[in-house]
Amino acid sequence: MANIGLVSVTNNQVILRDYVSGFPKESDLYIAPTTVDLRVPPGSMAVLVKNLYLSCDPFSRIRMEKPDPSSPASVARAYSIGKPISGYGVAKAIDSDHPNYKNGDLLWGRVGWEEYSVITPTPSSHFKIHHTDVPLSFYTGLLGIPGLTAYVGFYEICSPKKGETVFVSAASGAVGQLVGQFAKLAGCYVVGSASSKEKVDLLKTKFGYDDAFNYKEERDLSAALKRCFPEGIDIYFENVGGKMLDAVLENMRTHGRIAACGMISQYNLKEPEGVHNLASIVYKRIRVQGFAAVEFFDKYSKFLDFVLPYVREGKITYVEDIAQGLEKGPSALIGLFHGKNVGKQLVEVARE
Amino acid sequence: MANIGLVSVTNNQVILRDYVSGFPKESDLYIAPTTVDLRVPPGSMAVLVKNLYLSCDPFSRIRMEKPDPSSPASVARAYSIGKPISGYGVAKAIDSDHPNYKNGDLLWGRVGWEEYSVITPTPSSHFKIHHTDVPLSFYTGLLGIPGLTAYVGFYEICSPKKGETVFVSAASGAVGQLVGQFAKLAGCYVVGSASSKEKVDLLKTKFGYDDAFNYKEERDLSAALKRCFPEGIDIYFENVGGKMLDAVLENMRTHGRIAACGMISQYNLKEPEGVHNLASIVYKRIRVQGFAAVEFFDKYSKFLDFVLPYVREGKITYVEDIAQGLEKGPSALIGLFHGKNVGKQLVEVARE
Repeated sequence: MANIGLVSVTNNQVILRDYVSGFPKESDLYIAPTTVDLRVPPGSMAVLVKNLYLSCDPFSRIRMEKPDPSSPASVARAYSIGKPISGYGVAKAIDSDHPNYKNGDLLWGRVGWEEYSVITPTPSSHFKIHHTDVPLSFYTGLLGIPGLTAYVGFYEICSPKKGETVFVSAASGAVGQLVGQFAKLAGCYVVGSASSKEKVDLLKTKFGYDDAFNYKEERDLSAALKRCFPEGIDIYFENVGGKMLDAVLENMRTHGRIAACGMISQYNLKEPEGVHNLASIVYKRIRVQGFAAVEFFDKYSKFLDFVLPYVREGKITYVEDIAQGLEKGPSALIGLFHGKNVGKQLVEVARE
Repeated sequence: MANIGLVSVTNNQVILRDYVSGFPKESDLYIAPTTVDLRVPPGSMAVLVKNLYLSCDPFSRIRMEKPDPSSPASVARAYSIGKPISGYGVAKAIDSDHPNYKNGDLLWGRVGWEEYSVITPTPSSHFKIHHTDVPLSFYTGLLGIPGLTAYVGFYEICSPKKGETVFVSAASGAVGQLVGQFAKLAGCYVVGSASSKEKVDLLKTKFGYDDAFNYKEERDLSAALKRCFPEGIDIYFENVGGKMLDAVLENMRTHGRIAACGMISQYNLKEPEGVHNLASIVYKRIRVQGFAAVEFFDKYSKFLDFVLPYVREGKITYVEDIAQGLEKGPSALIGLFHGKNVGKQLVEVARE
C-alpha cells in the first residue's frame, strides 16, 4: 500500500444525461464532481488509478442507445443514465491491491470517463504498459485497441496478398491511418476516403496512401471508386457502411474480402440506409467478416512485437488529435460523428 | 466411332428472344428446330450427346440480363439473343471423339437447352456418371450442382456444430431440401421458409425440418424468426436475399455464419431491395460468405462418397418437379421465379 496523505479527493466525471437517438449532442453529456477514496480496501483485488488519456471511440454512440430489454447484448453494452460513461484509457496505478500491479505502474484498458477510476484488472480488460519510450497516449490508439483492430482486421481477416488492391474508408481515423500503412508494408495498392481536403492530403503525404478522395465532393461514389480502381477492389476495410458499402460492392473483384470493422455513418440514423448491391456477394463470392479486436487479445503481444520496431524506426507514423482536459471530453467525443477529428481523437485528462 | 445410320437429325432448341429486365416471361423464350450432325469430326475432342434431363436454375435469370460491356464477368455469363440457352443437364454420349468418353456413356455437366448438344468435356465442365442404381435425373439435383452446393455451403462455409440453430430460406427448393437434411444429420435445430402451405408441410413431414413457415403469410418476418428462434440463429443458408436477409440479420447470434448461396427474390427487380441491418455484421461479428459450387468440384467425389450411402438407405430423400418434354422448358424455368415448383425443377427431354 502506498503512503498517501489525502484519503479522499474530488473526482470529476463525464455523465450521460439521457439515452440518445439520432445524432448525439454535447448536452447529452455533462461534467459533475464526486469524491473518490484514494485507497482500495485490502483483499478487494482492485486498483485505484489516475486516468491520463481517454480514447474517443465511435462505439460509444452505440452504448448511448436506450437498451432493448429483449437483447442481453444491448443491455450489457448500454451506458447508464446519470453515471459516467466508460471506454479505453491509459492510467497510472495509485493504490493497488492486485498482485499483478504495484503502485506507480502504467496500464491501459477499460476505465471510466473520470479523473480516477477503481478497476479490477483481468487479462482481458487491462494491459500493463512495458514500453514507455513511445508516447503514452499511443496506448489509446496505435498501441491500443485501434492498432490491434487494424492489425487483426487487415492481416487476419483480409488475408492480403502482394499486389492486391485495398480500399479503406474513414482512412485518416484511428484505425484507417494504420491500415493504409500496413497495406503498403504488404505490397498492396491502397486508396482511402476521408471527409476533407486536409485529411485527403494527410493520407497521401503522411500515411503513404497511393490515392485518396474526399467522399463529400464525389457525387457518385461508385464512379470515384472506378476511377481509383479500374480493375476493381480485392480488399475493403469497412469503417463507414451505408452508401459507401453499396458503392464498394459494385466495385469489388471476384473473391474479394471485406473486413467489417465499423459502420459509423449508420450509428446516428433512426433508419439505417438500405444497401442494394448485396447480390454481388453471391455473384463475386465475396467474404464479409465482422470482427472486434477484443476477441483477439491473444494476438496483442505478437502485434506489439511487430509494430514497435516500425514505430521506433519512424516507418510507421500516427497522427493524434488531443483534446486537453476532461471538460473537453464531450465535445471531442461528439466531434467524431461529424468528422471533426484529424487522426486519432483522444482526451488528455492529466500528465503522468 | 459409332455406326450411326442417320447423319443429321432435327434438333429442337429453347432460344432466348431478347434480353430480360424485370420478371422473365415464357414469351422471352421460344422453341425452334435446327438440324445437328450426329457425328463429330475426328480430332475434335468433342462429344455429340443426347440430352436426357435439363436442370432449371435461378442463375439462368442473371444470364438473361443484357450484358454490361464494362464487366467481363457479365459479358461472359450472358446468354446470346437468338441462340439456345444453356445450363446443367444429364446426357448420353452418342458419338465421342474424346478419349475419356465412349459412345453410350452417361454424363452430367454443361449442355444447351436442346435435344442434342456438341460438348467438349473438361474435368471442370462434365462428369461421367458411374452410379446408375439411383434415378439419373438426380444428377441435375441431389447428385449434381444443387447437391454439391448444399454440401459445401453447409459443411464448408457454415462450419456447423452440434446443437446450433440453422435457418434455410427457399427451403424446399433444389438446395434447401438437402440443407435441412444435412443440418439434422449434423445434430442442429433447423427451420425453413417456403412460399406455400404444401411446401411447408413437405419441409416438416419429408425433409425433417424441426419447424417451418410460409413467408407469404407472415406480416413481420423478423417476428416469425423470433418465434422460431427465441435464442437467435447461428447459421443462415441464404437463398433469397432482400427483406428476408434483413429480418435474419436482426435475429442472428454473435459469431453467426451466413452462406450466401443465392438471392432469388432480387434477380427480377430493377432496383434491388435495400437491406438495412448490416451493422449487425459488426455488432455480432457475423461472417457472410458468397460461394459457388463450381469452385468446389475437387470435393465432388468426396461428396458422392458421403451422400450415396444415405440415398441408398433412404436416409436422404429428394423431391423433384419434372416437366415432360423440351417444349415445357420455358414454363418450367419461368415458374421458378414464381415459386411454382415443388422441389427440384427439371425438364425431362428424353428417356435414356
